[in-house]
Amino acid sequence: MQPRPNPSCLLLLLWLAGTLAAQTSAEVARRYTSEHQAQLTQAFSQLLSIPNVAADPGNLERNANVLAGMLKQRGVDSRLLSMAGAPPVVYGQVVVPGAKRTIVFYAHYDGQPVTPSEWEGAPFTPVIREVDGEQRIYARSAADDKAAIFAQLTALDALREAKVSLRANVRFVWEGEEEAGSPHLEQILDASRESIRGDLWLICDGPVDQSGMQTVVFGARGDAHLEVTVYGPHRGLHSGHYGNWAPNPAMMLAQLLAGMKDDQGRVLVPHFYDGITPLSPAEKEALARAPVNDQMLMNSFWLGHTDGGGAHLLELINQPSLNINGLASAQVGARATNVIPPTATADLDLRLVVGIDWREQQQRVIDYIRSRGYFVVDNQPTREILTQHPKVALVKRDEAGYNAVRTAMDLPIAREVIRAVESARADVVLLPTMGGSVPLGAMERAAQTHTVTVPIANYDDNQHAANENLRLQNLWNGVETMAALLELR
Amino acid sequence: MQPRPNPSCLLLLLWLAGTLAAQTSAEVARRYTSEHQAQLTQAFSQLLSIPNVAADPGNLERNANVLAGMLKQRGVDSRLLSMAGAPPVVYGQVVVPGAKRTIVFYAHYDGQPVTPSEWEGAPFTPVIREVDGEQRIYARSAADDKAAIFAQLTALDALREAKVSLRANVRFVWEGEEEAGSPHLEQILDASRESIRGDLWLICDGPVDQSGMQTVVFGARGDAHLEVTVYGPHRGLHSGHYGNWAPNPAMMLAQLLAGMKDDQGRVLVPHFYDGITPLSPAEKEALARAPVNDQMLMNSFWLGHTDGGGAHLLELINQPSLNINGLASAQVGARATNVIPPTATADLDLRLVVGIDWREQQQRVIDYIRSRGYFVVDNQPTREILTQHPKVALVKRDEAGYNAVRTAMDLPIAREVIRAVESARADVVLLPTMGGSVPLGAMERAAQTHTVTVPIANYDDNQHAANENLRLQNLWNGVETMAALLELR
Repeated sequence: MQPRPNPSCLLLLLWLAGTLAAQTSAEVARRYTSEHQAQLTQAFSQLLSIPNVAADPGNLERNANVLAGMLKQRGVDSRLLSMAGAPPVVYGQVVVPGAKRTIVFYAHYDGQPVTPSEWEGAPFTPVIREVDGEQRIYARSAADDKAAIFAQLTALDALREAKVSLRANVRFVWEGEEEAGSPHLEQILDASRESIRGDLWLICDGPVDQSGMQTVVFGARGDAHLEVTVYGPHRGLHSGHYGNWAPNPAMMLAQLLAGMKDDQGRVLVPHFYDGITPLSPAEKEALARAPVNDQMLMNSFWLGHTDGGGAHLLELINQPSLNINGLASAQVGARATNVIPPTATADLDLRLVVGIDWREQQQRVIDYIRSRGYFVVDNQPTREILTQHPKVALVKRDEAGYNAVRTAMDLPIAREVIRAVESARADVVLLPTMGGSVPLGAMERAAQTHTVTVPIANYDDNQHAANENLRLQNLWNGVETMAALLELR
Repeated sequence: MQPRPNPSCLLLLLWLAGTLAAQTSAEVARRYTSEHQAQLTQAFSQLLSIPNVAADPGNLERNANVLAGMLKQRGVDSRLLSMAGAPPVVYGQVVVPGAKRTIVFYAHYDGQPVTPSEWEGAPFTPVIREVDGEQRIYARSAADDKAAIFAQLTALDALREAKVSLRANVRFVWEGEEEAGSPHLEQILDASRESIRGDLWLICDGPVDQSGMQTVVFGARGDAHLEVTVYGPHRGLHSGHYGNWAPNPAMMLAQLLAGMKDDQGRVLVPHFYDGITPLSPAEKEALARAPVNDQMLMNSFWLGHTDGGGAHLLELINQPSLNINGLASAQVGARATNVIPPTATADLDLRLVVGIDWREQQQRVIDYIRSRGYFVVDNQPTREILTQHPKVALVKRDEAGYNAVRTAMDLPIAREVIRAVESARADVVLLPTMGGSVPLGAMERAAQTHTVTVPIANYDDNQHAANENLRLQNLWNGVETMAALLELR
């Protein structure tokens, strides 16, 4: 039996070891990436060249197999967690004998849908371009979210080359359905409940603060979608012969949508802001300390005004939002015809904060549509329905919504994450909530754990749009951050 | 020298001859079409199989050459009136020695743009389908407006076979740019001023009254277009990270458009109804006598309400209108992404009545857009413009607009047209204004003449939409009507 050390001495030693190890791992990672930049860029490019959109399940599966193989090459015990009808989750684990904690690294390997005609180049033919004197790699998922996966793999390589051992058990959960709203994630995790449990899930997704500083985020907005279609004449009518008389669905939709927000962008749907859980004093303090990037962002996005009546971006993303993701009715431009269109459709994106249930938020919008005189259906309306009601709306609820989640910043494990990240990067921004959404709730329920989000991508990465890109320096910085987090004990 | 007849006797004889000839020509036409239906359907089908959209000028030219050839085959002196950058006008004339009058038959051979994916079948592969026990031919321009051209050619054949001579000089002017707003018609006509002059222009375009009765129309609404684009962020932004803060152009456009009309469809743009020339007592009386088809049309179009606060269709098309022909912002449905779109666009169609100038009506809408806080530009806005103005709208004025025209129903030549048509068809509806537009003003100015419109297509012909079609019985009736008009003296 070994002698039992003095507890305060042990704490001191642990602290010293922790500090030294974290410094070491970040340094180790920096040396590794600077020595291997060309081949790392090449390997990342190869990963990005595998298409990863929901419409192409064969290639999603290919991504999963490639990633599982990359984990195995690094000595990680890896397999696919599969479910019929869903892209598999890539799973990996490293068991460290005697480890007290298990840290789970979450990321996702699927990307947003692409419209190739909108891209300069092709979405799955990665290219390097210089922007403001810095190199960026352009491809779908370069930032969102293969960057995080590649940074984790590279951090493993760096630590292994320097013979730095892990101190906690480490697990990897890389999802393939995040951009579709993670409809099967909770089920897949539930089916492998023991494998995916951890003391903390680190969510490696999203962009860092717009200031460029490394960011740790303690929650994310939830998300819910609705698709609304309103009806005019059953077939397109000549807008000369019937204009003024046949109701125009594009105008009906405009009037319906216009009533949902005031001129400042505040949502007018009744009860839309009801039930919000207020920010804690620690969260308010973190927000107050965070950089204010609004003017820089307005310049960058060519904006002459912002919504929110003068409130800052960081305040506003701690509120629920309603956004139109797309509008369509007949054609515009050269293909426009003199028609009263038969239908007009809007896709609505509802972002949620803690305290608001996603299904209830959808219902509030549906109730609002009803209050505007619409008979609401959830299937293609029949002739009978259309002729018997002055106004008819088909509202499709996207069933892949989820709620917002926020982890308290002062939990012990949260404090350790902050310490590790601060050991790797000089300036760190702490934010209560990310504007974008990740299905944190599903993870927390299935893994019975807390989540903390550590993004690495540049904010101006065009994620969810054409010409998505990652600033390569963000990748190298991200490897350092991931190396520090892999050394959590 | 022949004996000079008693003038009143001559009038009686002329009247008798006119009546007999008109009866004869309609009968002649009916016999002809019933004897040759199969081959006429085949020949019409061939004409419809030549694509005739503005985007395909080569095929428009092919249409023109084929039509000029068809006129020549019938002994009509024919040629093309050409102008660089415009599809040619097909011109034909028959000089009748001693004729006192010249009657000009106008029609157009171009069709509305097509979106083939929306068609059942293909727009230029004509097919016959049975609808409610009657045959219809489906193809772009089956109704609008090759039907009128083919009816005129067939009426010529019928009269020739029966050796019935024409009594007035007859001219044909078949345009190739009507669906693009006839931007060059007036110039082309001006350049051939003597050739195209006539005592009357008969405009053979549009559908008959929805009751199915043959219709004579004494005017048409004018038309003007605007394309409005409003701006959000310069590139698509993630609707999670920036939603509530970055202005959403789809919502901005919805709010801008929504304010243009009230819930009843009345236009709220200031001065929109200013300056309208009121209907004469004769016009009001004709309107009061016309069939009321509203309920039948609502059933046919699957409508549960109409705009106009209870006013009838025929009243409403004697008012100016504002219609949205199309809306677009990012994507909807399966291709939608979580994006704040960079732009949103609406195509607006303004229909005009006598007393309102088309450019002034465009200006009223532009002034309204300005009054809603928009900085209006007519070219792609620069970064400087976008960042210096809270709201920016690019408004493209379509320069191919024109004014409404109305011919008095009690002019002598107008009365003769009514008489001729009533000799061919049992029930005739007289309307002061057609809802759809034809550039009557350009014709009246260039040809220094009056216009009267005699349409032949069925109202439910899907003109300007997918699956355009002509009820074949309307074609046969139309041949009778055209034969009667060819016999005007």
